[in-house]
Amino acid sequence: MKQKFRIALIGTGYIGKTHALAYRSVNAVFPDLPELVADLVVDIDETAGRAFAAQFGFARFSTDWHDAVSDPEIDIIAIATPNHLHKDMAIEALRAGKHVYCEKPLAVTIEDSEAMAEAARNASGQTLVGYNYLCNPALQLARKMIESGRIGRPLFFRGVNDEDYMADPKTPHSWRCERAKAGAGTLGDLATHLISLSQFLMGDIVGVAGRTYTAHAKRPVASDQAAYRTVENDDVVSVLVEFEGGARGELSSSRIAWGRKNRLAFEIHGEKGTILFDQERLNELEIFETPEDADAQGFRKILIGPAHPPYGAFVQSTGHQLGFNDLKVIEVKNLIEGIANGSPCYPSFEDALKVEQVIDRVLNPQPGT
Amino acid sequence: MKQKFRIALIGTGYIGKTHALAYRSVNAVFPDLPELVADLVVDIDETAGRAFAAQFGFARFSTDWHDAVSDPEIDIIAIATPNHLHKDMAIEALRAGKHVYCEKPLAVTIEDSEAMAEAARNASGQTLVGYNYLCNPALQLARKMIESGRIGRPLFFRGVNDEDYMADPKTPHSWRCERAKAGAGTLGDLATHLISLSQFLMGDIVGVAGRTYTAHAKRPVASDQAAYRTVENDDVVSVLVEFEGGARGELSSSRIAWGRKNRLAFEIHGEKGTILFDQERLNELEIFETPEDADAQGFRKILIGPAHPPYGAFVQSTGHQLGFNDLKVIEVKNLIEGIANGSPCYPSFEDALKVEQVIDRVLNPQPGT
Amino acid sequence: MKQKFRIALIGTGYIGKTHALAYRSVNAVFPDLPELVADLVVDIDETAGRAFAAQFGFARFSTDWHDAVSDPEIDIIAIATPNHLHKDMAIEALRAGKHVYCEKPLAVTIEDSEAMAEAARNASGQTLVGYNYLCNPALQLARKMIESGRIGRPLFFRGVNDEDYMADPKTPHSWRCERAKAGAGTLGDLATHLISLSQFLMGDIVGVAGRTYTAHAKRPVASDQAAYRTVENDDVVSVLVEFEGGARGELSSSRIAWGRKNRLAFEIHGEKGTILFDQERLNELEIFETPEDADAQGFRKILIGPAHPPYGAFVQSTGHQLGFNDLKVIEVKNLIEGIANGSPCYPSFEDALKVEQVIDRVLNPQPGT
Amino acid sequence: MKQKFRIALIGTGYIGKTHALAYRSVNAVFPDLPELVADLVVDIDETAGRAFAAQFGFARFSTDWHDAVSDPEIDIIAIATPNHLHKDMAIEALRAGKHVYCEKPLAVTIEDSEAMAEAARNASGQTLVGYNYLCNPALQLARKMIESGRIGRPLFFRGVNDEDYMADPKTPHSWRCERAKAGAGTLGDLATHLISLSQFLMGDIVGVAGRTYTAHAKRPVASDQAAYRTVENDDVVSVLVEFEGGARGELSSSRIAWGRKNRLAFEIHGEKGTILFDQERLNELEIFETPEDADAQGFRKILIGPAHPPYGAFVQSTGHQLGFNDLKVIEVKNLIEGIANGSPCYPSFEDALKVEQVIDRVLNPQPGT
Repeated sequence: MKQKFRIALIGTGYIGKTHALAYRSVNAVFPDLPELVADLVVDIDETAGRAFAAQFGFARFSTDWHDAVSDPEIDIIAIATPNHLHKDMAIEALRAGKHVYCEKPLAVTIEDSEAMAEAARNASGQTLVGYNYLCNPALQLARKMIESGRIGRPLFFRGVNDEDYMADPKTPHSWRCERAKAGAGTLGDLATHLISLSQFLMGDIVGVAGRTYTAHAKRPVASDQAAYRTVENDDVVSVLVEFEGGARGELSSSRIAWGRKNRLAFEIHGEKGTILFDQERLNELEIFETPEDADAQGFRKILIGPAHPPYGAFVQSTGHQLGFNDLKVIEVKNLIEGIANGSPCYPSFEDALKVEQVIDRVLNPQPGT
Repeated sequence: MKQKFRIALIGTGYIGKTHALAYRSVNAVFPDLPELVADLVVDIDETAGRAFAAQFGFARFSTDWHDAVSDPEIDIIAIATPNHLHKDMAIEALRAGKHVYCEKPLAVTIEDSEAMAEAARNASGQTLVGYNYLCNPALQLARKMIESGRIGRPLFFRGVNDEDYMADPKTPHSWRCERAKAGAGTLGDLATHLISLSQFLMGDIVGVAGRTYTAHAKRPVASDQAAYRTVENDDVVSVLVEFEGGARGELSSSRIAWGRKNRLAFEIHGEKGTILFDQERLNELEIFETPEDADAQGFRKILIGPAHPPYGAFVQSTGHQLGFNDLKVIEVKNLIEGIANGSPCYPSFEDALKVEQVIDRVLNPQPGT
Repeated sequence: MKQKFRIALIGTGYIGKTHALAYRSVNAVFPDLPELVADLVVDIDETAGRAFAAQFGFARFSTDWHDAVSDPEIDIIAIATPNHLHKDMAIEALRAGKHVYCEKPLAVTIEDSEAMAEAARNASGQTLVGYNYLCNPALQLARKMIESGRIGRPLFFRGVNDEDYMADPKTPHSWRCERAKAGAGTLGDLATHLISLSQFLMGDIVGVAGRTYTAHAKRPVASDQAAYRTVENDDVVSVLVEFEGGARGELSSSRIAWGRKNRLAFEIHGEKGTILFDQERLNELEIFETPEDADAQGFRKILIGPAHPPYGAFVQSTGHQLGFNDLKVIEVKNLIEGIANGSPCYPSFEDALKVEQVIDRVLNPQPGT
Repeated sequence: MKQKFRIALIGTGYIGKTHALAYRSVNAVFPDLPELVADLVVDIDETAGRAFAAQFGFARFSTDWHDAVSDPEIDIIAIATPNHLHKDMAIEALRAGKHVYCEKPLAVTIEDSEAMAEAARNASGQTLVGYNYLCNPALQLARKMIESGRIGRPLFFRGVNDEDYMADPKTPHSWRCERAKAGAGTLGDLATHLISLSQFLMGDIVGVAGRTYTAHAKRPVASDQAAYRTVENDDVVSVLVEFEGGARGELSSSRIAWGRKNRLAFEIHGEKGTILFDQERLNELEIFETPEDADAQGFRKILIGPAHPPYGAFVQSTGHQLGFNDLKVIEVKNLIEGIANGSPCYPSFEDALKVEQVIDRVLNPQPGT
């Protein structure tokens, strides 16, 4: 097994910072892992990029992402740029034989997503898409419980992903409201998490019927609050789905849900029990199992701890809690393991394409479905 | 104002008992109310009926409901029989000049429901349908908060009504699984509450798109667990709705949700805030209001108390809690007040017809909707 | 078994109303019970008393409690008067051969309490003291779980009883603040519930060390907010106890805990598990049992239902919830059963004396304890 | 301001690992901070120590802590050794002019603690004791709310700190049960957090009355489960305290509370409101403020986010949550800031001594208190 991998990070925004933090911690948290070297960081803004490199300990800096992709020293290309730039970077990196670690969503159009997945199929490198919520040990536990039959065959998935970052009607119009720049609204930004999560736990989605709703049809222009501009994508999306094997689901997501900050929540009803989760309390999972004693049945709230790997690599006591940034460290660990072992990472471009296909079917319903 | 009303109760099952308990308490809890006299009870089973009359203090008993309807002493006919019997009793009672207090749902078919509403339009008596959950002071508070603008214009309603009484696949086939006897499944039994509740808070539903799902397609025959019989109606129903004025909603309901006992829960996202409720904690309501202080915003959990009428008629201290049976007492109070004042009760047959119309549109979707 | 008992109620205030409501419902809820006749009500205020009799259906009224005690028709004397009046009424009633149903606390002084218990020992009648919270099926379940060994030997009890009715420093001085009229403050009003509850679940308290704290030493005089008067009893009380058998406990109670309305909450740590309860959610009990699976352990929240008698006598479905007034109906049922069967009611005067003894030991610590 | 500080870490156990992780992240999370260099690590086990140095990126390793203390290159000595070793290391480091960052508790005996505080008084270096829970932005918010008067003058503090690591009576005897090695039991291990927390929020403790309780008097010997050995310290501790200024408090802590993993919870009752916290949900704080509207009052649950510094340095969105390890990063940031600015860190040896003094007064009560 190779003992060292060099990574180049393209993009130094919000999510790029999360990457860089994780690169610094991953070998300390997981000492048995091959070494990850934060080698090169790319940003078109030289001043910001150099400061970022210094802050997070990257050895090198460039303003041109082609430098990263063509650099023979680099093993892994991490893409944390605006979404519409993912495709070209990812495809060129794959063609150059790199492993590609791309932020979600895969791309802005279904055509781009398909092209990326196609490139991955023909490449030697591994791919991983940054749906890092899936790395939560609580969700790994949920999946384990399903697979081991604790709730029987899963029959129904009801999930929500709500935030309130656009809840105020006075929040100005921005690129987020433009179809050309952002693609779908809530559907692309928040519901993607829900779709990836539901497929992780329930299997592939084979049937889709969706409705989008733009509650605030116009928003003020930032520079002139008296002027208003049309919002081109959805504030709220409701999707009824069918999973392979016949189970059904409801996915609902809103960016205008006052008070909700990161409510990625679901319940799964199975033949023998129910599982509950809410990411605003990401260290907890609840389960109801078919009762033995009629007078003692109820939902059991499990606090995540060392019994739920890889929590114990971070803290040795239950209830001390992981945070959001820790999930990214787990994701980077998964990436390195997959690359080192030559085994597919999850979710790969192929897996993430399935998320985009669901989105596409909401936006472009087929006759007769 | 008339000072005394005589009621006849038809049906002595589960819900009939709830009625009878409420009749006994209503004047003690609400001393300013005209007197309600539990005069006559009707049941086809003479032994059971007589025992019931004795238990709950009815003066008279009959095995024939026509006795009640034709009795000039009786002011109010309460109908707590199997659902398919509602229509004839209600219409005949209305024609006889009685006030009619009918259990939910209004009827088993849309035609019956329409006939009942038509009869009510042409009658002098008041009508009230027993959606007693609406009597919860917490829900009255929710409505008051919406009306007073605390959360701004309501934009989105997301509701569930889950129980688990059919969650076990081994639960035998019964009349509940037969379309002829029960009509819809979860849709008619549980979602009705959700529909009535959403219309109470959000206004009339004008757009409907639904999906039903029978997770357990066959169930064992009670007398022979080796034999299986087809389930003819829905275990789970998902309905996407539009309210008058343009707000949207999702209604989801299941009778196979292990661990859920009476989860009639909703969230309403408004322009300025959010309201949350879950009937498994029926004395609580949560509200999020647009924050003044960024560092102190959050959901506020309100415990119902004397500030939320008519709680104080039952208990004089907050947090001591009302129970399910108390809600029925409030409903009976509302009935008497409406009758005494000659003002329409809520929900009337006309209001309840709107619930049935939503159900009908789920079961019989119109082309182009 | 005698088939009918006549009760006389002395006192028509807040708690008297709760009694009267329960008398009306008890035979309807529990049809197999001997009949309870609300025969006579006593109040010194004739107008209020007569109105009360009419409202709640008492056959007779008197302004003199001696009429009740000496009436040969009356079987049971219910005492719902101010606390300092309990003693004379109870003792005279017991001497007259009546059963006595007295509101909590037993009396204002330990001497009075002892005299009442002594009278009960020498009387033929049953006694019951109105610690009605103990009638909650959730607490009966807690006791059953302890007795059946689900949490092993109970080792530690930590309980609180908080309200906020005196939290506002501007709340005027009243009889509640005077030692002569109210006796202890929070200790007598709220902590009594906690003491009775802890003894119900853990056994008798044999060791006591307490501290009282008057946070608001003076309060404004109602008629003149510029004038202040000294508060003579405790706002907060902390009691460290030892139970027979060696388990320990902490009892803490406050009347100045803003936001707490009826928080009678406890946790019991046992050798094998833990039980949690909070009366602001009186239909729930939580239990943690020694885990079998390290990755699936957690607190299980039990919703009270028909599996927890006598819930099913009120409602036939789990999760529909009992309210405060229902607990009083159960208490009255217990009273009638005890009297009819000639078996001691719980808590009797003897049991309630043990509560007063704990209070006395807090107020009057013994040297060397 | 100096731009670089070199730290030497003594001890590579559980808490040492937490330190090392924080050293790696602190400059990336807080880019404006002077640089912290993880220079030297000390452990008596050479193999383990060298592996640790490699894992966490320390430049140098030694088996002798005197090497660290006497090294002129080193600015800060971090002590993460067994508690009884703290004193000598800290005092020698202070005398050598180092800053000292010592894990909690300060020492095993009050004499050692006093000697350490005395050494700190006479030294030029800063001191900081690792009560890292205090770094939680939720607790900083609690303090800010108190200081700004949102709940008025704080009157009462009720806190618990429960875990279950000794709840199983079969858990073998260990050094934790020996007074010579561990000092107090729960009091020294868990209640210390509670004491430090209460003093952070309420001010110094000036009155103390405590009770300790050893529920499991003997435990099996690890090597021979048939043999039992006496437990020499407390499983449970109850402390009644008085704060400077007159407010009161109750501190309760247990290591045998089944199901509790990290329940460091408190409520503070003030003249105008109440604050609640539970570390098992460390990203939440609840507040009740004196109501304006009687029908809308309740506890407001605040989710920690960028409005609560320094959360935003980790994540830019509310509700994404910090974890335990992030708190240690904040603590290290505080250390560097204090040292760089020459301002006292909190809690210093002087502050931590006050924790030890409370413990001492529980273990050695003075006559007349």
